Amino acid sequence: MRDAWILSIGTELTLGQTVDTNAPWLARELAALGLRCAEMRTISDDLEPITRSIRAACEAERVILITGGLGPTDDDLTRNAIAVAAEVDLELCPRSLDALRAFFAARGRDMPDRNQVQAMIPRGATAIDNTCGTAPGIHTRLSGADIFAMPGVPYEMKTMFHRDVAPALRAFGGGAVLLSRIVRTCGLPEATLGRKIATLMTRGRNPEVGTTASLSEIGVRINATAPSREQAATMLDQTEAEIRNRLGDIVYGRDDDTLAGAVGGLLRARSATLALAESCTGGLIGELMTDIAGSSEYFLGGVISYANSAKRDLLGVRPETLDQHGAVSEQSAIEMAIGARKALGADFALSVTGIAGPGGGSTEKPVGLVYIGIANPTAAIAREYHLGFDSPRDVIRQRAARVALNELRRHLLRDQAK
Amino acid sequence: MRDAWILSIGTELTLGQTVDTNAPWLARELAALGLRCAEMRTISDDLEPITRSIRAACEAERVILITGGLGPTDDDLTRNAIAVAAEVDLELCPRSLDALRAFFAARGRDMPDRNQVQAMIPRGATAIDNTCGTAPGIHTRLSGADIFAMPGVPYEMKTMFHRDVAPALRAFGGGAVLLSRIVRTCGLPEATLGRKIATLMTRGRNPEVGTTASLSEIGVRINATAPSREQAATMLDQTEAEIRNRLGDIVYGRDDDTLAGAVGGLLRARSATLALAESCTGGLIGELMTDIAGSSEYFLGGVISYANSAKRDLLGVRPETLDQHGAVSEQSAIEMAIGARKALGADFALSVTGIAGPGGGSTEKPVGLVYIGIANPTAAIAREYHLGFDSPRDVIRQRAARVALNELRRHLLRDQAK
Repeated sequence: MRDAWILSIGTELTLGQTVDTNAPWLARELAALGLRCAEMRTISDDLEPITRSIRAACEAERVILITGGLGPTDDDLTRNAIAVAAEVDLELCPRSLDALRAFFAARGRDMPDRNQVQAMIPRGATAIDNTCGTAPGIHTRLSGADIFAMPGVPYEMKTMFHRDVAPALRAFGGGAVLLSRIVRTCGLPEATLGRKIATLMTRGRNPEVGTTASLSEIGVRINATAPSREQAATMLDQTEAEIRNRLGDIVYGRDDDTLAGAVGGLLRARSATLALAESCTGGLIGELMTDIAGSSEYFLGGVISYANSAKRDLLGVRPETLDQHGAVSEQSAIEMAIGARKALGADFALSVTGIAGPGGGSTEKPVGLVYIGIANPTAAIAREYHLGFDSPRDVIRQRAARVALNELRRHLLRDQAK
Repeated sequence: MRDAWILSIGTELTLGQTVDTNAPWLARELAALGLRCAEMRTISDDLEPITRSIRAACEAERVILITGGLGPTDDDLTRNAIAVAAEVDLELCPRSLDALRAFFAARGRDMPDRNQVQAMIPRGATAIDNTCGTAPGIHTRLSGADIFAMPGVPYEMKTMFHRDVAPALRAFGGGAVLLSRIVRTCGLPEATLGRKIATLMTRGRNPEVGTTASLSEIGVRINATAPSREQAATMLDQTEAEIRNRLGDIVYGRDDDTLAGAVGGLLRARSATLALAESCTGGLIGELMTDIAGSSEYFLGGVISYANSAKRDLLGVRPETLDQHGAVSEQSAIEMAIGARKALGADFALSVTGIAGPGGGSTEKPVGLVYIGIANPTAAIAREYHLGFDSPRDVIRQRAARVALNELRRHLLRDQAK
């Protein structure tokens, strides 16, 4: 199996002013092609260190992916560094010059003189078309290594990688393919979940299984290594099935699936509609629900009842409830849900009221105390949660939104099962 | 000036399954201390390449910051790699062992045997206390270089850096200090803004000034390099004042300031209250407003009027308005704002209605068409925006929220000036 290195070029990266997301993206793509990234380097816009790392990367016939440093200005030095490492001159690529002129012409402009340098490539190298920007890429072989230089703009880089670099890399195949999947769960603590799948999480096992917790959700990552993409995909499927079998309905999806999407799917399946009453989350749940295209099919809207007057006037929460129990109480959550369901004429309503902090907490009602209410056509309930743990305001709000969506998801599942 | 390198250790990083935010964070901290990061390397959990990079980093008496690889398991190899590079053995640090035992005792647990390895450090090195986790750090000198190894968990790393590493690095001073600031703006296109500050953006100038556009906002970054922190800070202040002078009230803040925070400050200053009527943004503006602690002082709440029935029933938008002009129209935006102001009893109301896509667009009303309405105690207006440009749904929604908050901000500024 050939090792791969990824070099990211740019002083904005070494100064820490831009976080490099290109290198991790490329590493995952490489793994899926059977090429494992062994090292990543981030280098400032200086000729000598870029050249040195290219030379080092060329040992052991590696695959070398470079991003950045292909712009038209004096501090764009990737093409020069490749030329110096290969001990060749830069020469004009007429095809790239035509493409550059066409790029500007399509935008009704003349090509600035300084852009001409982008059509220069090291002698013996091949230019890679850039279909969405000015900087062509470069492919060359050097001491048995294969170098692919791509633009630093993520969108241009990804387009070029998929169109021209990945097909070339496939030819180098033969290495083990690593495919990953994340099974998404909500509703069990990490330790409890871990015990249920402990036998899958043994070190050194293939597929490798591990958990990561974030904002009341736990992702179960599966890494499968196999001789072919098909075999790795089968291993992922089998392990996901086993995980779902052990964890039951706390699993709500995989990879890019969201709790809001799972809730939307359940509502759509039964042609039901949803209304919200949000206090401490302030609109966050609405934002998550409507982030999904087509959510207008089941999502009617909601009330952001931040002030008590809004809970009273728009949701019909009784003044005596607010007086006796307070806005953050089981009773208020129930009345908010009932009120939202009625005000919007929805089948189901979800309500959240709590103390997101940092102020506003007390011994009796500490920061992180959250009540989540659900109203359906025949009843309404609310449950108490403690989501504080000294976390900052935004984390408590994000947790509350996820816990609320998960409550609703499980309510819809149970309701469906009847 | 001493060069610095940052090494990030972990196969989860080289596989691209975790994005490394430690290295950019450290690079910015180094710059503020007068140490420039020249190169970052990310290396898998393998002894030989880690050792090789430590040796390479030790050339030229560099400062070397390492994160990760200090855990208790067999694939945590940072301490071993430093020992191999220094050609010394690991030895037990009794102070670290006591701290480890105390860490577990405080949690009512015995220390697992495997954690003892975390108290081993290369002979001649000094352990750095970890006040919030198990892995102590390591400081050692090697061929004139200074190596600081810290845990990979960001919170533990940052705590250790501030408490023990930064004070030690200060002693190496003498290099030029680089301080950065971002002036936050909304309301002018990048090209127009760029022309107004073009004379500040000359290449090679100090302070260096550049712009970055994101979601309808433009950030103007200032990088000031000076012999001392004080001088760099003065340069930032002077350049920020000049930028504010040229750009006027499109500037709403700096660094971590947000549009929602600027709106909140203006409302608080005049003891005014705000209500929202959100359609295509679905709660996003409410989420941004309530993300700010203390926002209950001026934010009353709002209506997420996703369905037309919600616009009608909760906001009082007239059925004939919806019939004749449609939900996405200037007239609907005006009636939504008036309705929200009245329903919540607020001084000001902000409304948004638009087509976020990808479906729902037409030739007459394309995806990205957004109307933003504002109601104050005496009047209501709405303006039309086109925020599409083939962007995905979430980008259009984020843009709409920012443009709406900026409209309200400038309305409050003008209103104040009267």
